[in-house]
Parts: sequence; structure tokens; C-alpha cells
Amino acid sequence: MNHSQPTVRLKPDKHIDCNLSQDDGVWMMGSSFIIFTMTAGFGLLEAGRVSSKDEVNCMVKNVFDVIFGGLAYWMFGYGLTFGDSQHRFGKFFGFGEFFFDPERMSEDDSTDEKGISYALFIFQMSFATTTSTIVSGRFAGMSERIHLRSHCFISFFITIVHSIAGHWVWDQEGVFRKMGVVDSAGCSAVHLVGGISGLVATSYLKPRRNRFARNGVRTVSDPTKAILGFLMIWWGWLAFNTSSNYAVTHGQWSEGMRSAVGTILASAGGGVVTVVITRFATKKIQMDMLIDGMLASLVSSTGGCLYFTPWQATIVGAIGSAIALGAYPVTEWLKIDDPVGVIPVHVVGSIWGMMAPAIFVYRRPMNFGPPECNFQTSDGTNGLLYGGGFSLLFLQLMVVFVIGTYAAVCSFLILFIMQHSPVGLRISKYEEELGADLIEHGLAGLNLMTYTVEKKLDARTLSAVLMMIIRWRSKARLGALRRRQIHDSGLATPKPVTENVEMNVIHRRH
Amino acid sequence: MNHSQPTVRLKPDKHIDCNLSQDDGVWMMGSSFIIFTMTAGFGLLEAGRVSSKDEVNCMVKNVFDVIFGGLAYWMFGYGLTFGDSQHRFGKFFGFGEFFFDPERMSEDDSTDEKGISYALFIFQMSFATTTSTIVSGRFAGMSERIHLRSHCFISFFITIVHSIAGHWVWDQEGVFRKMGVVDSAGCSAVHLVGGISGLVATSYLKPRRNRFARNGVRTVSDPTKAILGFLMIWWGWLAFNTSSNYAVTHGQWSEGMRSAVGTILASAGGGVVTVVITRFATKKIQMDMLIDGMLASLVSSTGGCLYFTPWQATIVGAIGSAIALGAYPVTEWLKIDDPVGVIPVHVVGSIWGMMAPAIFVYRRPMNFGPPECNFQTSDGTNGLLYGGGFSLLFLQLMVVFVIGTYAAVCSFLILFIMQHSPVGLRISKYEEELGADLIEHGLAGLNLMTYTVEKKLDARTLSAVLMMIIRWRSKARLGALRRRQIHDSGLATPKPVTENVEMNVIHRRH
Amino acid sequence: MNHSQPTVRLKPDKHIDCNLSQDDGVWMMGSSFIIFTMTAGFGLLEAGRVSSKDEVNCMVKNVFDVIFGGLAYWMFGYGLTFGDSQHRFGKFFGFGEFFFDPERMSEDDSTDEKGISYALFIFQMSFATTTSTIVSGRFAGMSERIHLRSHCFISFFITIVHSIAGHWVWDQEGVFRKMGVVDSAGCSAVHLVGGISGLVATSYLKPRRNRFARNGVRTVSDPTKAILGFLMIWWGWLAFNTSSNYAVTHGQWSEGMRSAVGTILASAGGGVVTVVITRFATKKIQMDMLIDGMLASLVSSTGGCLYFTPWQATIVGAIGSAIALGAYPVTEWLKIDDPVGVIPVHVVGSIWGMMAPAIFVYRRPMNFGPPECNFQTSDGTNGLLYGGGFSLLFLQLMVVFVIGTYAAVCSFLILFIMQHSPVGLRISKYEEELGADLIEHGLAGLNLMTYTVEKKLDARTLSAVLMMIIRWRSKARLGALRRRQIHDSGLATPKPVTENVEMNVIHRRH
Repeated sequence: MNHSQPTVRLKPDKHIDCNLSQDDGVWMMGSSFIIFTMTAGFGLLEAGRVSSKDEVNCMVKNVFDVIFGGLAYWMFGYGLTFGDSQHRFGKFFGFGEFFFDPERMSEDDSTDEKGISYALFIFQMSFATTTSTIVSGRFAGMSERIHLRSHCFISFFITIVHSIAGHWVWDQEGVFRKMGVVDSAGCSAVHLVGGISGLVATSYLKPRRNRFARNGVRTVSDPTKAILGFLMIWWGWLAFNTSSNYAVTHGQWSEGMRSAVGTILASAGGGVVTVVITRFATKKIQMDMLIDGMLASLVSSTGGCLYFTPWQATIVGAIGSAIALGAYPVTEWLKIDDPVGVIPVHVVGSIWGMMAPAIFVYRRPMNFGPPECNFQTSDGTNGLLYGGGFSLLFLQLMVVFVIGTYAAVCSFLILFIMQHSPVGLRISKYEEELGADLIEHGLAGLNLMTYTVEKKLDARTLSAVLMMIIRWRSKARLGALRRRQIHDSGLATPKPVTENVEMNVIHRRH
Repeated sequence: MNHSQPTVRLKPDKHIDCNLSQDDGVWMMGSSFIIFTMTAGFGLLEAGRVSSKDEVNCMVKNVFDVIFGGLAYWMFGYGLTFGDSQHRFGKFFGFGEFFFDPERMSEDDSTDEKGISYALFIFQMSFATTTSTIVSGRFAGMSERIHLRSHCFISFFITIVHSIAGHWVWDQEGVFRKMGVVDSAGCSAVHLVGGISGLVATSYLKPRRNRFARNGVRTVSDPTKAILGFLMIWWGWLAFNTSSNYAVTHGQWSEGMRSAVGTILASAGGGVVTVVITRFATKKIQMDMLIDGMLASLVSSTGGCLYFTPWQATIVGAIGSAIALGAYPVTEWLKIDDPVGVIPVHVVGSIWGMMAPAIFVYRRPMNFGPPECNFQTSDGTNGLLYGGGFSLLFLQLMVVFVIGTYAAVCSFLILFIMQHSPVGLRISKYEEELGADLIEHGLAGLNLMTYTVEKKLDARTLSAVLMMIIRWRSKARLGALRRRQIHDSGLATPKPVTENVEMNVIHRRH
Repeated sequence: MNHSQPTVRLKPDKHIDCNLSQDDGVWMMGSSFIIFTMTAGFGLLEAGRVSSKDEVNCMVKNVFDVIFGGLAYWMFGYGLTFGDSQHRFGKFFGFGEFFFDPERMSEDDSTDEKGISYALFIFQMSFATTTSTIVSGRFAGMSERIHLRSHCFISFFITIVHSIAGHWVWDQEGVFRKMGVVDSAGCSAVHLVGGISGLVATSYLKPRRNRFARNGVRTVSDPTKAILGFLMIWWGWLAFNTSSNYAVTHGQWSEGMRSAVGTILASAGGGVVTVVITRFATKKIQMDMLIDGMLASLVSSTGGCLYFTPWQATIVGAIGSAIALGAYPVTEWLKIDDPVGVIPVHVVGSIWGMMAPAIFVYRRPMNFGPPECNFQTSDGTNGLLYGGGFSLLFLQLMVVFVIGTYAAVCSFLILFIMQHSPVGLRISKYEEELGADLIEHGLAGLNLMTYTVEKKLDARTLSAVLMMIIRWRSKARLGALRRRQIHDSGLATPKPVTENVEMNVIHRRH
């Protein structure tokens, strides 16, 4: 931060006379607490969707994301995003504020200034570690395919990659920010970076073995955990979007409220579309598609959440879900192994998320127009729908292209260097078969809880179901008999094992 | 909203001169974030208590509740509860504000007005979706018995039913509100509606197969998940009750604090009673009874949480748990299949919750008496205990009767129409046996983790336990042998399967 | 509270003219909501780390902690900590305010005073119940070894023990507080009390059977749940530390922000050290060590979180993790059975946590120096590193010694009395073998999901792994065959059981 200036530089991208203060700090802090819960959500989302031999490993990876991503953000990330931009390449990255420590500020600095610095840091850090989770968990769409030690490095470096992109769209001197890009809550700097990195990574790593083998069935560990994870991400997303204007004072809270309403309605709109598509495409509510469709609607809302009115948000979310699920067959056809839906959710979702504000923005308000601090001032920008023409759309798409290319190049470099370094990258065939829980964590165990995601029931399988029912009924008779027998003999169960296991197995066939 | 009035209509049931503003909006928003976490809690609570073949389906249903309940609230619910009441039937429902969008407000409206509208909406929507979860998850006490597609419609319509009842007790023109009913946090409009609907639904649908068969054992999927869900609901309930006075400014925060203390103490009081009753009735701490007893104490607190002093709350919660658990044998005797405790928790709990304030209220404060905005003004109403007589009690019971009847009729109509529509209602016998996870979600799997809830250990089963212990000891010797053998041979395990499975089974007999 | 004084006594340990008010109350309340989520986290942490036959029991215990700990705090705890100290032994315990009820305050008391009382109570209660969870869950490092009914009493009494220690360090008249001890967020009163009690309890109870038998393998229930629990505790800890200065007004929010940044960085620093140590010591990322190391870094931060600058916090956390993990072999050597890491995390962590501020404090600010309410006033105390000498270090260590001894004596007395009372303490051998889920909760079930925590892979086991791989490959061929067969025959699965179970078992050998 440049302390020679007389104005208090409280919001990173503004020099403002109207002080941000207690209320804003407390709000940012509270939001960052809720945003940190998203780490648990992403962990569960992944853990529940990989096969059960890698479940614990997924949780640990998300812990690592906070550790290594957090450290990277403290050491370099914050400085690269919000550090001093009064240098030659100030448009492209910040410099300074490394190893963030506001106590280094001059003694004259008021308590409030330090407080806001801290608040901003913890808030941005919660963004950055969530990003690290998204990015590396996604970059690591390669769940189940890389060494845990490689993951540490990737968490660290991808956070740096994100931080530089963050400078472009969030810092007031950032190159795209100056051009007037609309990206409220990290649609490009978080989700596009994460999605593209994941796409590169999963292509680079090649599919998991047997993933595209003939008749290959996907097995997932625990769908309940995946859905619980999604619900946690959902609630965290509310705070993520709402607090993306950093402030509540000076009328900013009102924008935040709109953002919250927009977020929930985008997911409701997206949800309906997802349910309908899943139902028609698979005759079922496939758990994966449900989660991915709804996440895509949330990603779609991040670009313009501060601007969308309720009905706009609903439509943006609905379209986002629709095109994301439309990308499903494409990834399948391209034989891209994408276990946690990186490409539909984050690539497709964020491209649409960047386009949406260019269509729907109406008299974009300028937050914090100094010196009057009246957030209602408009810079007159309109979207396509309100006669603003294509200029904003071109800008947004250009940003998508540049950041996408940047993320692709950086993640390829990271992967390439990792692979040829002593650290290594892809685990061996046997390690993959044994599972990371055993190899990396020494957790050998009996985890029989494995679900198989079925293809849709067609006429042919239907007859099989009928056969199964017949078997089932005879089993049920047996079971009733056995239950009575058990009851009669109290707790002593002579040998219920085989039968019992069989019942369960038939019941949810493997 | 009626914008012709000079006063700012910030709180839906008041025209106030003292502006609600930033602080109130931020508070409502923060609370709504926490309230949204309750969806995950209810999902887990149900998923953990049904049999494991329907676990995932329960989670999906709760996602649907937010999607379809949320949409219903956006489209019609908010308007029916808080829309314009200046029409002929204004006492009975609001009209207007459908497809909620404050941007439609005239250009003259200040930012703050829009902000408060948004805040109020997101807050009420979090209430409504939670309600939808309670109501439909309860209405769907019919977990495991209805089609998932029917659930979407039910979520939608029951939210509308709730919204109209909400108008009666929450809107300033509402018929019961005008009579002076006390219902702080939706005891009647949320819990009674949900409970009665659930009672009607479960009677209408008839029990799950084998539920009341002789020696029928209840199997539950995962009690740990159920308790985790309860803990999430518990923490969410704090926000639910605390923020039910919408505001923190003008001294309102002080009421909120009292409400939070009351909520936690009600559950502590209820908890002790629950533990004692469960212990005496079953010689154990039955997981179902523990959860239901404590939820009942929380429901009991919703009626008067803004008014109860700490000791009153403790007693109200304790009585609530006691009578709720007293209703257990009754539902069993009536052969009502109530897998997630709708009737004790929501019907019994909310009736007592409505009666409690009529007993304990002391000089009921009038919030926001315009124009002075001094929340300490009392309207002089006292409860039974403080010489207020029976009039408030009669009013409360009348409201219980009217809303209960209304909910019963509406839910019967919804069920009847659904059943005779192409959508259908009850799943077939075979679908029920195969489980919704397979049928609706295509999740075939091996989920062996099934718990059986035992009847209490009596003298007869005790001897069985002793026999079991003898078996166990011989097994244990075998196991120790095997473990040594394993250790000696490293990771190679020749054939530990059968033994191991057997040990587990005997260990927790099926 | 002493109401004869003209100043408003809003913060328990200060008589201040500068009113605490709405903003502080709302902040405390919001924090207490987040702190309550830690109960769920601790429940999961324990449930996931004990063997699967006691999983549900662990969750129930944590519910009991809120019930009985909460009641104890309401009845006596709050009064003992913050009650009137104007009596002969006022340095040692408060007296009065039992059965907390601010409505008993004189009618003259303003709404704000009552509000702050409530806010303070709910906030402290969230601390106390979390403490009760830590203490009793730890005191009950004796998970799996005591009767559930004994646990109720222990929750109750240990909360009282904690409350008295709380008076010493938190109340303005408290003996250590007056000497100038530094304990921001309960490092001594919460974690040391909990840790020492746990140490005493686990020594008193003797190890679980077979725990130290030759070749004894530890089995854990579900590591994913344990890590989820840790993540919940992590996010809760942010609120715990941040809000430990009770206030946001008068510049206090700025300290809170620093505290939050310090907390997250302490865990990041500790995390890196933990990962490195675990990797070198076991060649793996052992789930237990990861969780314990990171919790130790969080405990280390509680002593001086309000004072540490970012780099100091990082170092404090890193050292905390290092020495905590260094204590691992010691407990193993002493044959102390410590299933959830009480001793490394809470004993070692809190001793270092009390020492750390004595090293790093720089011009300790005095919060709320009446009458000017300028929190920047320093009392001139410096730590060792800034030339403050050893006096503060001696004081801190003395407090550690006194509180440690006090906790040891009290917990021994409680255990001794419990054991010789009709309630009893340690469960019998057979009950231990059958598991608390069956004995206490009547949950008999098939929970085959059991993980075994392996010793590190060495050269010898490596050959075993290779053998296993060979087996695995042949199994895989079989499996592929079977899968094709299944696919061909639709859903009908003739008899996949044995094979399937075997595959899983070999896959994660038992």
C-alpha cells in the first residue's frame, strides 16, 4: 500500500475519502468465516464422488489447500494482487506487501487502517484458499491420479497463478479493471482459472484406468457425503457473492442483499432446469448431474451477482445449468475423465458467467465514486438487452480468452515441471489400484460402502429388475423367517452373515 | 408494497418512521445465511434415520425443497404473505409483489428501501425454504413412500399453503396478528402447518410395508449422520429464533439476545427431561427419542422465544420434551408410521409452543411503537401466570385449531389431487422394496452399513447377551491369532473375509 | 453484578463509561452461533477416530456436553466466573448471578444493559459448552471406557471446575488477571484444564483392552468424518479467537481482525510442520498426526492471538505443532492410551500457548482503558524478544503450574468419587467388547466400515504389497469378467457377494 497518499486506502482498488471502518471490517470478517466453511464442502463433494479407496485422501487434499494455498497467499499472493502498482508493470501485477504484515505500517497509521488491512486480508485469503480448493481440487480434476506430495506444490503455485489474474480484474490499476470488466465475485479469476487448469490437468494426466474401458462402471464412494458437501458449498456461496463488494457502509449493503437474493434465485432457476434435463436424459435424477447443474448455475451468477435483478438471476442460472449439462456428452465423447465435473461447472459455467452481465447490466452503478461516496452513480454502461451494444460483451469475451490462455499455459508449465522434477506427478498403476488411502495415509480398511452409478434403466434391464424382484421376494420371506428366529433367540445370531450380505447386495446390486 | 404512503414501510408488519437500515439488513442477511445451513441439517437428520436404501433420496429431497420451495416463495409466497393487504380479503392473504423484484419500485425509492426489501426477502425466503423442508420433509413423513416427482409438486404447493398462514400471523393486517396472537418464530405458521400436514400425509399413505408387521425391526441407515444433522439444526435454530424480530436497531437486538439465551436453555431443559425419560422407558439412550425430544423442546420455544426469561425457557423446553415423548406410545398404538418423529416433534411441540406464551408472558412489549420507536412500551398483555387470565390462551388455542384444520384440509387436497393426477403419489411395492436410491437415482451399491434399533434389553435377551459374549471371546481369541498372523505376513491377507465379517456381525448383531 | 455503581458494567471485567452496545452484542451473538458449530466438529472428530462400535456414542456424548455443561454454566458457572467479587474470596471465585436471569435486574436498568448481559451470557456459554466438549471429550480421552451416565455428571462438574479457573484469568478481580497474565481465548482456562483432566482420566482409567497388546492394531471408524470434524473445528476456532475481546466498538474490531489472521496463519504454519514431520516419521500423511498437529497449532494460538503479528503467529503455530508431535512417542512409551490426542494437543499445546505471548508480546495494548476508551494505550509490557525480561514468562508458567495442579486434583476427585458412587465409572470388559452403541443406545448393526491404521510401510511389508498386487490383478481380471457378466444380464446378480467382499478386503486389507 502506498502510505504517502493523504487519502486512506481502505479498499484495495479505490482511494477513498469515505472511510471504510468497523462495520465493513466486521462484515468482511463474518463473511470470511462462512467462506471458510466452503473448504469442508468441497472436500466432501470430492470425497463422496471418487471411489471409496480415495475418500480420505480427498479430504486431506482440501486441508492441504488451506495450508499451502494460505501460505502462498500470505507470502506472495496478496502482494501480487493488491501490492503497490506504481511500477512499470503495475497493470500486470502488484509488488510489495509480501509476507503481509500491517504492523510494518508506520506508527502514524491509525488503528482503523490496520484493522481494515487485516479484514481485507482475511477476507481475500478466504477467497484465495477457496480458490485454491476449487483450482487445485479441479486442477486436480485429477483426483485419484497424482501424488499427494505433488498436490502440495500445485496448491502453492496455482494460488500464485490465481493471484496475478486477480490483480488484472480486481485491483484498481489492473489492466482489465481499467477497461471496465465486470467480474463481481471472481468468475474469471477464480472459476475460469480453476476450470481451465482442471481441463489441462485432466487431459495431461490421461484418464483413470478403466474409466473408459468397455462397460466401465463408475463407482462412487458416498453420494450422501457429496450432497452434504454441495449443501455446504451452497450456503458458503451466499456469503461469497454477497460480500464481494467488500463493504456495507455507504449504501453498499443494499447491493450485497441484491447479490444474495440473486445467488439463491440463480440456483433455484438452475435447479429446475437441471432436474428437468436430468430426468429427460437419464430417466432419473442422477446425483452427479444434479450437483453439477446446480453448481454451474452458482458459477454463472458470480460474474454479475451485484447487478442482476431477481428475474435476471433466475434466467442466468437456468441458462448456465442448461449449457453446462449440454457439455456433458461432449466431455464423454472427447474421453476426458472428469470425476468432479470441472469442465461443465467451471469452464462452461464461468464463460457464460462472464457473458451474462454483458447482456443484462442496466446502468451499471459505480461503487464508491469518490469523493461523494454515493454508490448510485452510474457509469452509464448498459448490457446488450438495454441497448448497450456489443462492446461490453467483446471485452468480457476477450478477458475470458486471455485469462483462459494464461491459465492453460501456467498450469501446463506447472504440470510439466512437476512431472520432470524429482517430486513426480502421476501415481503408478498399482498405486492407483490400491488407492491413495492405503498408499498415502496407511489406511487399510474394510470400506464396503460402494455405490455404482448405473446407466439409465432401459427395456432390457427392466426385465432384469423384474427377475430381481422375484429373487427379492423369496429372500424377503427368508429374511422375515430369520428375523423371527433372531427375535426368539434374543441376541444370539447363529450365522446370519451370508444371508444378510446377500440380501443387501441383491437389494442394491453391485 | 404501498408506495403512496409517506412513511417508509420497512418492516412488513409496521409502517415506521424510524428507519430500519444497514445494521438491520446486515443482521437479517447474516442470520439467513445461518438459517440456510438448516437445510443440510434436516437432510442429514432424515437420511440417517430412514433405511439405507433411501438415504441419498432424502438428501436430494432437501435440495429440491430449496429449489421448488424457493421458487414458489419467489413467485407467489412472498406476495401472499407480505403483499398488499388493502383489498377486500386483506385479512386473509396479501396480493401483489409476486415474482418479487424491488427494482420495479419507483425510481424515487431510496437505496435503503430497496436494500431492506431485499434483506427482508432473503430472510423470509430462508424461513420459507426451511419451512418447505420441515413441511415437505414432514408432510413427507412419508419418506420412503412417495415418488420423487410428486415431492417437487408438494414442495411447491406446501410453501404456498404456509405463506397464506404466514400472512395471518405475521402481516400487520393479518387476521390473527390483529387479534394479538403471540407467535415469534413461526410456531403455528411453520411447525403446526408442517406437523399437521405430515400427520395427514402419513395417515393417507398408510405405513411402510413391514413397519408394523409382527417382530418388525426398524433399521436405520446411519445414526451418526442423524445426530450430525440434529446438531446443524440446533445451531441454525439459534439464528432462526434470534432474528425473528427482524431488527437490531432501536434496542431490538436486546430482545434478540434474550431469544438466543432462551433457545439454548429450552433445549438444555428439554434435553435433561429427554435423557431421563428415554433412560427410564427404554433402559437406554435411544437415538430417535433423544433427537425427537430435543427437537420438541426447540419447537416449543418458537412461540414465545422473544418473551421468555431464562428460567421460563428452561421450563417450557422441559415440558415440551416431556409431552412430546409422551405422544410416542400413542402414535405407535394408532399404527401411524412416523419415521422422523413428525407428530411428537411438530404437532405436539407446536401446540404446546403456542400455549406456553399464553402462560408465561409478562407485560408483553410492543416492538416499534411508532412514532417513538421505543420497544419497551408494553401493551399490557399478561399471561396466565401473571394474572392475565385465559383470554390469550383461548386466542392461541383458537389459532392452533384454525391453522391446524386449514393445514389438514389443504394437505389432504394436495395429496388427493396428486394421487389422481398423472403424477401419482405412492410408489409401488417393488419400488419400495428396491429403494428410492436405486429407482430414482440409479445408485446401485453395496451399502452394508445398516443399524437395527433394538427394543430394550430385558431379562430374556440378557441371557442371549451372555451367550453372545461367550461366542465373542472365542472369536476374539481367533481374531488375535489372525491379527498376529497378518502382522507377520505384512499386508498379505489370505482369507480374512468371512471371519472378519462374522466378527462384526456378532459384535453388532443383525 | 453490582448495580449501585453509576458506571455501566458491560464487560464483565471492566467498569466502563464507554458503553458497549448494539454492535458489540450483535457481534458476540454472531460469534457464539459459529462457536456452537464446534460441538458438531468435536463430535465428528471423536466419532471418526474411535472404533466403529462406539461411533454413535461419541456423537451423543457431545450432545450431552451442551445439555449438561450448558445447564451447569447457567446454574453456577456464569456466577462463579463473572459473579460478584466484592467478597472475602473474590480473587478466587465469583458469587451471585446463579441461575442467570438479567430480568431480575432492577427495573431501572436500561434495555441495553440487559441486552449486553444476555449477549455476554450466550457468548460465554458457547465458550463454556465448547469447553465442556473439549474438557469432557478429552477428560473423556476415555472415550470407549466410561458409562454414558457417568459422562453426564462429568460434563456437569468439569464445567464448574472450568468456570472457577475462568474467574482467575478472565474476571477483573481474578487473582491471575490482576497479576497481568496473558490469556486471550482460554489457553489455560479451557485447554490446559481440558488437557490435564484428560491426562488424569486416561491414566486413572487404564488403557482400552488390547490397546497395547503386542501387534495391537488401532482401528478407526471413519477418517473422513474425523477430518470433516476437524474442518468444522477449524472454522469455529476463527470465531472463537476473534471474538475473545468481546467487542468491536472503540477500535476493538481491529484487534479481532488481527486475531483472525493470526489464527489462520498459525494453523498454516503448524500445518506445514505437521506435514513434514508426519512424512518423515511415518513415510505417510497419517490422518491422526495431521489432525493433532494442526489442532496443536490452533491451541498454541489461543494464548496470545490478540497480540501476535502475522509472522509471529505463523512461528508460534509451527513450534506448537512440532513439540506436540514430539510428545507422541512419549505417550506411547508411557503406555498412555490417548485415542483422540488429548495430551499432545491440549497439554503440550496449551503450555506452549501460554509461553508464547511471554516471548512475542510487544508493548501490550490495554483494552478499554477507562475513561478514555482508547484501546491503543499500552501497559508497557514486553515479551522476552523485545527486552521485557523473564518476569512475564515466570508469571505465565506459574499460572500453568497452578491451573494444571488444580485441574489434576479436581479431576482426580471427580473420578474417584464417581467410581465409588452408585453411578460407577469404567464399563465392564464385555461392555467394552460389545461397544457402547449396542449397550447404551441399542443400536445393533452391521457396520463393516472399519479402517485400520497401519504402521509405516517398510521393506518387509513392501514385498507383501507386491504379493498383494499380484493377487489384486488376478482379482481385477475376475472383477472385469464379472462386471461384463452383470452388464449382460442387466440387474440380476447371481452371487457376487463373496468375490466382491474379498476384492474390497484385499483392496484395503484388514
